[in-house]
Amino acid sequence: MHQLILTFSCDDTAGIVHAVTGAIVACQGNILELQQFSSTDTGRFFMRVEIDVPTAPEEFRAAIAQVATRFAATWAVVPAGVPTRTLVLVSKAAGPLNDLLFHVRAGDLPIEIPLILSNHEQLGRLAHYHGIPFEHHAVLPDSKPAFENRIRQAVDELGIDLVVLARYMQILSPELCTDLAGRVINIHHSFLPGFKGANPYRQAHERGVKLIGATAHFVTSNLDEGPIIEQNVHRVDHSATVAELTSIGQGLESDTLTSAVRLFAEKRIFLDGIRTVIFH
Amino acid sequence: MHQLILTFSCDDTAGIVHAVTGAIVACQGNILELQQFSSTDTGRFFMRVEIDVPTAPEEFRAAIAQVATRFAATWAVVPAGVPTRTLVLVSKAAGPLNDLLFHVRAGDLPIEIPLILSNHEQLGRLAHYHGIPFEHHAVLPDSKPAFENRIRQAVDELGIDLVVLARYMQILSPELCTDLAGRVINIHHSFLPGFKGANPYRQAHERGVKLIGATAHFVTSNLDEGPIIEQNVHRVDHSATVAELTSIGQGLESDTLTSAVRLFAEKRIFLDGIRTVIFH
Amino acid sequence: MHQLILTFSCDDTAGIVHAVTGAIVACQGNILELQQFSSTDTGRFFMRVEIDVPTAPEEFRAAIAQVATRFAATWAVVPAGVPTRTLVLVSKAAGPLNDLLFHVRAGDLPIEIPLILSNHEQLGRLAHYHGIPFEHHAVLPDSKPAFENRIRQAVDELGIDLVVLARYMQILSPELCTDLAGRVINIHHSFLPGFKGANPYRQAHERGVKLIGATAHFVTSNLDEGPIIEQNVHRVDHSATVAELTSIGQGLESDTLTSAVRLFAEKRIFLDGIRTVIFH
Amino acid sequence: MHQLILTFSCDDTAGIVHAVTGAIVACQGNILELQQFSSTDTGRFFMRVEIDVPTAPEEFRAAIAQVATRFAATWAVVPAGVPTRTLVLVSKAAGPLNDLLFHVRAGDLPIEIPLILSNHEQLGRLAHYHGIPFEHHAVLPDSKPAFENRIRQAVDELGIDLVVLARYMQILSPELCTDLAGRVINIHHSFLPGFKGANPYRQAHERGVKLIGATAHFVTSNLDEGPIIEQNVHRVDHSATVAELTSIGQGLESDTLTSAVRLFAEKRIFLDGIRTVIFH
Repeated sequence: MHQLILTFSCDDTAGIVHAVTGAIVACQGNILELQQFSSTDTGRFFMRVEIDVPTAPEEFRAAIAQVATRFAATWAVVPAGVPTRTLVLVSKAAGPLNDLLFHVRAGDLPIEIPLILSNHEQLGRLAHYHGIPFEHHAVLPDSKPAFENRIRQAVDELGIDLVVLARYMQILSPELCTDLAGRVINIHHSFLPGFKGANPYRQAHERGVKLIGATAHFVTSNLDEGPIIEQNVHRVDHSATVAELTSIGQGLESDTLTSAVRLFAEKRIFLDGIRTVIFH
Repeated sequence: MHQLILTFSCDDTAGIVHAVTGAIVACQGNILELQQFSSTDTGRFFMRVEIDVPTAPEEFRAAIAQVATRFAATWAVVPAGVPTRTLVLVSKAAGPLNDLLFHVRAGDLPIEIPLILSNHEQLGRLAHYHGIPFEHHAVLPDSKPAFENRIRQAVDELGIDLVVLARYMQILSPELCTDLAGRVINIHHSFLPGFKGANPYRQAHERGVKLIGATAHFVTSNLDEGPIIEQNVHRVDHSATVAELTSIGQGLESDTLTSAVRLFAEKRIFLDGIRTVIFH
Repeated sequence: MHQLILTFSCDDTAGIVHAVTGAIVACQGNILELQQFSSTDTGRFFMRVEIDVPTAPEEFRAAIAQVATRFAATWAVVPAGVPTRTLVLVSKAAGPLNDLLFHVRAGDLPIEIPLILSNHEQLGRLAHYHGIPFEHHAVLPDSKPAFENRIRQAVDELGIDLVVLARYMQILSPELCTDLAGRVINIHHSFLPGFKGANPYRQAHERGVKLIGATAHFVTSNLDEGPIIEQNVHRVDHSATVAELTSIGQGLESDTLTSAVRLFAEKRIFLDGIRTVIFH
Repeated sequence: MHQLILTFSCDDTAGIVHAVTGAIVACQGNILELQQFSSTDTGRFFMRVEIDVPTAPEEFRAAIAQVATRFAATWAVVPAGVPTRTLVLVSKAAGPLNDLLFHVRAGDLPIEIPLILSNHEQLGRLAHYHGIPFEHHAVLPDSKPAFENRIRQAVDELGIDLVVLARYMQILSPELCTDLAGRVINIHHSFLPGFKGANPYRQAHERGVKLIGATAHFVTSNLDEGPIIEQNVHRVDHSATVAELTSIGQGLESDTLTSAVRLFAEKRIFLDGIRTVIFH
């Protein structure tokens, strides 16, 4: 038996679930879990199904393809448990990368990281400890295009499904954002839309908020405005200094980014305009 | 168009979703939301579907009944938004009842309460303010059977779907627990299975826990061991007295009970042995 | 023995705690709880002390007054447990008022409410049920000054310590904000500074946030920018409609406002510029 | 100026704060933060003070010692920021150790770890990466006394203030628990007192709880009953397998243990019988 994950989205209409499950039945598949949602905001239909099928994945894909054509759907069938090929971009902050690598090694985060790219060299040793190739390139105004070309090349050659900005402190060009739309996850160090831009923990301290947060979101060319995937908060009080807020916040950032990456790797995230539909 | 909610559970096998959605398609229904789960613990299949159908509910029920027979399913079709007929049992504590009544009045909790039964008279005035019949019966060892007969009678005559123990401080007889299995929700003033029995806030204080909780669960004859529906916790510190823990805990109890009642009223809860499956 | 609460704030310097506790010792007082914080942001010193003293409160006040003069302190001594005189302003939304009144009645919120003022008549019945005088005044552009005069009059004549805007949907004039600075608490239906202004739940839905929140803050003439007292959040997902966000959010609002009012009534809140220092 | 932390606990009586702050004033010290609590359960007084003093720490200690003698207090004065000497015991699970080491390296956890002892060799490489001596000793029934002697020896020779059981899967002997009372922190993989003993995540799954938790506590000879320091929970639903609960729970364990270690290292934890007083 093959365990597969099917994701399927299209304009909403009657009969989609029946048609898709008909294809599953025709392949003698058994549904393990099915989640479906129709967005009244956008009129889109979203479905995620986990299936056991005795046929080969290619045969199952062919059966789904016919249904997908009928509904003009965006869809994919992937074997469950196959790790998502992930490129990680970092700068100096170690926390989110350490958390990702720890969970990969612990075997509970289904991604594999064939390469880490950085505009600083500090995290090379951490990458090396985990046996992951690490490249350091200076990213200055005139070398940024070259670095983005290296990203594009890596995405193509290494079969990358997901790019993770794990506190990578550079803004991607609008072109790259567009070309990789829906495949780049960033962690923002605040509870968006609360404190956009720089120094959010300082802003949070000055404003005297009682909860600080972190937000994982897809990257778009509209900075800090991409579709939100996951958010977490932590209670703080008046005595917390900016340094303490930063320390607490960095823990939140790591947790939140790892959660978002796990949701992506498990094919649980769908884009619905500027929002996400997430089947937990 | 009629908006209906279908709940459907049976032993898991291939083809159930396809068969059910086939009946929906045959009635020209459109699926608004579908959630499905197969329990590997018990081998049971659970599904909840919200549907828009142009046919009369009875016609739709007939179509589903055929599929249900084939899979020996437990199922129901109810119109969305029709309030769940709810009998509330109370003693002296006002919090959970006040919260339920407030939300009913605010229009965001789809239940209707035709009767409140109590073994104390204190809450009669609150019931009266909300225009709900209130009966006070002394419940002593020799009058308990009579009170339980009154409960049974009310359930039958008033078409009760749900009985809520809103801090009703008496134990129901095993017979009544069995007869109303899956239809009686209790709020327990602790984070089960942590502090069973009496005085959980005192126990929590003495043990020095850093979080206190509340648990809403179905009532079974096995006291404090019924299937858990919802749990919440609140952070506390060393300075909290038993009285303060009690006050904080009572807020949790009300919130947690109201949440569980809402889940029940929206047909989101399924029993899976001693556990619950809940489609949020 | 008299149980008293002392609050004391002044510019920070050495010897303040020793001097104040010296006055306490001189009155044969016993400290039950003492919390102190020096703000590095503003250079201010804040202290809250709960004391048992055998002397009359007036004698104790005289002793503290001498120390306070020496440090040019802002200070107060109040008997513990004496309810805070509270004026509540409402419009149509019942939730926060219901929650306040429930807790007052339950005896776990140390305030007393001699009057409720409203620009709508809907909540009169709820006030009546709780036996609290309720006045309804139309608040239109030309009658707003009269209504604010009524507020000022009530504050003076009723000995009001705290004004609570329990979803009162009008903006107070800058003059009133100034005159009552530090004594007016508002509940804002969002996780500030996230969604200021109108329709925050719609904004939250459109932005697709994964947590919604509520913020209790002191009112200043700078709308939605007053010092934050308490914030809470609740997790939501893509399926939540604006109506459901609103319902969930209203529960948060009530909880958060009641918490803030309790902190005020227990003399736990200090203003530190645009931030608050809160001794939990 | 020297920044010092004073901790002071004794039987409660009038005049303690004044006496201690008198000693601080006599040394020309300035109080940065002072927290005090008197336990009505045990009649004990607890105080933590952060102070800037111009005198040498020894001189300040001498001044405090006089006051301490008068009240028969347990007390300590340590320089702020000096790392707590910490011995870590591990078995095979990497998570809590990785989290501790990450935060030590990040500079936001004020401990230093001169040695890691383990009854398995797996985590040697992680220790090596962080440059920390690692010893692996088999711990079998007849070699357990030798291992405990090694622990005692390390505590003495390395000046250890804190022993952390970071998922060390062996029970310490009652003698060692007694000798190191108040200095050994363990992480328990459940929300105590909920699921004591082995396989708590399996127990949690079988019971169908909606929140799972982790508890950091001091070790006593009464297994799983030591004073609780910190607890955290995470929401789960019916679909979570035991493996998923375990994965989520391990993240909670790491966070919770690191928090407890930070509280200890910052001298914020006091023992009050079987409870803890914690000044956040």
